[in-house]
Amino acid sequence: MRGIYFDGKKAVYRRDLPEPVPAPTESLIRICLAAVCNTDKEILRGYRPDFRGVMGHEFVGVVEKSPDPSLIGKTVVGELNASCGKCIYCRTGRPTHCTYRRVLGMNQKDGCFAEYMTIETSLLHLVPEGLPMEKAIYTEPLAAAFEIMTQVSFTDDRNVAVLGDGRLAYCVVQAFCSRGRRVTVIGKHPEKLERFAPYAEVTLEREKEAYEVVIEATGSPEGIKQALGLVRKKGTIVLKSTYAGEVSLPLSLVAVNEITIVGSRCGPFVPALEALSSGRAQFPEITLFAPDEYERAFTDTGFKAGFRFTDL
Amino acid sequence: MRGIYFDGKKAVYRRDLPEPVPAPTESLIRICLAAVCNTDKEILRGYRPDFRGVMGHEFVGVVEKSPDPSLIGKTVVGELNASCGKCIYCRTGRPTHCTYRRVLGMNQKDGCFAEYMTIETSLLHLVPEGLPMEKAIYTEPLAAAFEIMTQVSFTDDRNVAVLGDGRLAYCVVQAFCSRGRRVTVIGKHPEKLERFAPYAEVTLEREKEAYEVVIEATGSPEGIKQALGLVRKKGTIVLKSTYAGEVSLPLSLVAVNEITIVGSRCGPFVPALEALSSGRAQFPEITLFAPDEYERAFTDTGFKAGFRFTDL
Repeated sequence: MRGIYFDGKKAVYRRDLPEPVPAPTESLIRICLAAVCNTDKEILRGYRPDFRGVMGHEFVGVVEKSPDPSLIGKTVVGELNASCGKCIYCRTGRPTHCTYRRVLGMNQKDGCFAEYMTIETSLLHLVPEGLPMEKAIYTEPLAAAFEIMTQVSFTDDRNVAVLGDGRLAYCVVQAFCSRGRRVTVIGKHPEKLERFAPYAEVTLEREKEAYEVVIEATGSPEGIKQALGLVRKKGTIVLKSTYAGEVSLPLSLVAVNEITIVGSRCGPFVPALEALSSGRAQFPEITLFAPDEYERAFTDTGFKAGFRFTDL
Repeated sequence: MRGIYFDGKKAVYRRDLPEPVPAPTESLIRICLAAVCNTDKEILRGYRPDFRGVMGHEFVGVVEKSPDPSLIGKTVVGELNASCGKCIYCRTGRPTHCTYRRVLGMNQKDGCFAEYMTIETSLLHLVPEGLPMEKAIYTEPLAAAFEIMTQVSFTDDRNVAVLGDGRLAYCVVQAFCSRGRRVTVIGKHPEKLERFAPYAEVTLEREKEAYEVVIEATGSPEGIKQALGLVRKKGTIVLKSTYAGEVSLPLSLVAVNEITIVGSRCGPFVPALEALSSGRAQFPEITLFAPDEYERAFTDTGFKAGFRFTDL
C-alpha cells in the first residue's frame, strides 16, 4: 500500500508498504483523511529519534475489519495511545501515560499516513451523523485542547490568556468558545490574529502580570518565558507546546511568585466530537494533498494541511 | 542600637543604627532571638540587589509599643510581608504577593537582626504559653512548609517524597509529620539523613518515576531536574527552593508527562505555632551567637544559627 514512512531521519513516500494485519483486539481502518500535526514536523526535526514507521496520528477513516461487528463500515476517529492495562499508570486511571504505550506514528506503532492502519478497537470513536470528515479531522487536536478543562479550574473570577496565534492556540480558543467562555489571544502576527477575532479578544500587547491563567500555545521554547511575565502571582500557566531541547528559566520566580505550571497533552475525544458536531467549535478548511505531495504538505503555510488517501 | 546591616554587597555589624520609630499601625518589637535563613545567605550572594538595611526576618521578640495595648509586654513572632491593602493581589486574597509589599530584611523594610524592629501590628502572632522562644523561633520556616498543604491535595493515594536533607526539607517533613503523614526523604548525606530517621523514611536512592508528589527542597538549581526524574507522570512537583540565576530544563517533558509544578513560598503561622506548641513538630536546638559574631553565624554548619539580642 501507499504511505509516508519515517526512516529515522526523513519522511519517505513508499508504494511498497505491507498492508497491516489487525491483532485480535484491533480494528483495520481504511484511512480517508489524515492531517499533519506540528508533532509530525517535530519528528522530522529529531523529537522522536527511536521511531521508525508510518507517520501521522490525526485521521478519519472507515472500519473494514473489527472484533466489534457493529463498527464495520462506520466512519471513525481514534485516540493515539494504546495502553498495556497493567502498569502503574493504567492501574491508576492514567492510560494515556502508560509506561508501555504505543503511540500512532510516534512510538512502536505505525500511524495513519497510509491507505490502511490498525488500531486498538477501544480507541475508536464514531463520527456523529452529519459531521463531515473535513471537520471531524480536527477531533484529536481539539480533544487535546479540552484536556486543559480536565486539569485546571476556570472559575469566572479567573481571566484567561492564550499565548500564540497558530493552530495549537486556535484549538484552545475553540474549546473555550464552545463552552461560552471568552479568552484573550496574545499573538505576534496581525494577519493570523484576524482568524481569532470572531471568537476571542485579540491583542499584540503583552500586559505584565495581567492574567490569572496563561495557556502557552506558541509551540516555541520561548513561550514559557513570555508566559511567566504575563501571569498573575499565584496564577497558573498551562504548557501545551512540545519541542526537542531544553529551555533556560529563572525558576526561582516560580517559587517566589507561587506560580503553578501545568503540563498538558492528549485529551478527551467526547467533548471535542460534541463541540464539532454541534457547530460550537469552528475550524477553517483543511488543505488536502495527494500522499505523494507529502513535501508540500509538510511545508504548507496554510492553517492545516492533510492527505486524502481514499475518496468515499 | 546594634544590628547587622546589608550595605548592598556585604553584611556589616553596626552599633550606630537609629532606633526605629513605629508608624501609627505598627508595633515596636524588642528582638530577643533572631535566626539566619538560607535566604539571608542568598542576599549576601546577590539575590536581592536593591535591598539596603537591617537583615533578617525570623524572630521572637517582646512588644514594647503598639496601637493594640493588649499586646504590650507579650512575646510574639511575626510574618514577613507587609501589604498595601489596595493592589490587585490584596483585593483578591493574596496579600503575601502584594505588588507594593515591604518584606522584613529583604525589601524596603528593616529586618530583625537588630535590638529593635518595627512591624505592622496585624502581622504579629502571640507565642502560646509554655512554648519556649528557642522553639518559637522556628515558626516562620515551619509556616512556609505548611504553605504546601494549602496548595496541593495530599489524598492518601499519593505517596510523597521530600528531595533534600537540609533545613528546608526538615521543616517540610515536620509539617507532614505533625499531620500524621509519613513521607520519604531523599538525600545525599547519610549523616544529615539520620536527623530525619525518627520522622520519615530516609533513602539515598533516587527511584525513577516513583512518587506522586515530589517536594523539591534542596535549595539548589539542580533540584528541579532530579525532581523531574522522580515524579510520576501526571504527578506534582512542589518547588520550595529559591536562588539567584536560571536553570536549564527539558520543559517538553513537563507537557508530555503532564507534570504539575507548584511554586511555594511563605505560609500560614497558625498551624505552625500549633504544631510547635503541641510538640507534634520537633526541631534541633538553634546555635546562638552574639550579634558581633555574625560572620560565624552566617558560616555555621550546624542545623540552625541565630542571634541572641536580648536576654529576658
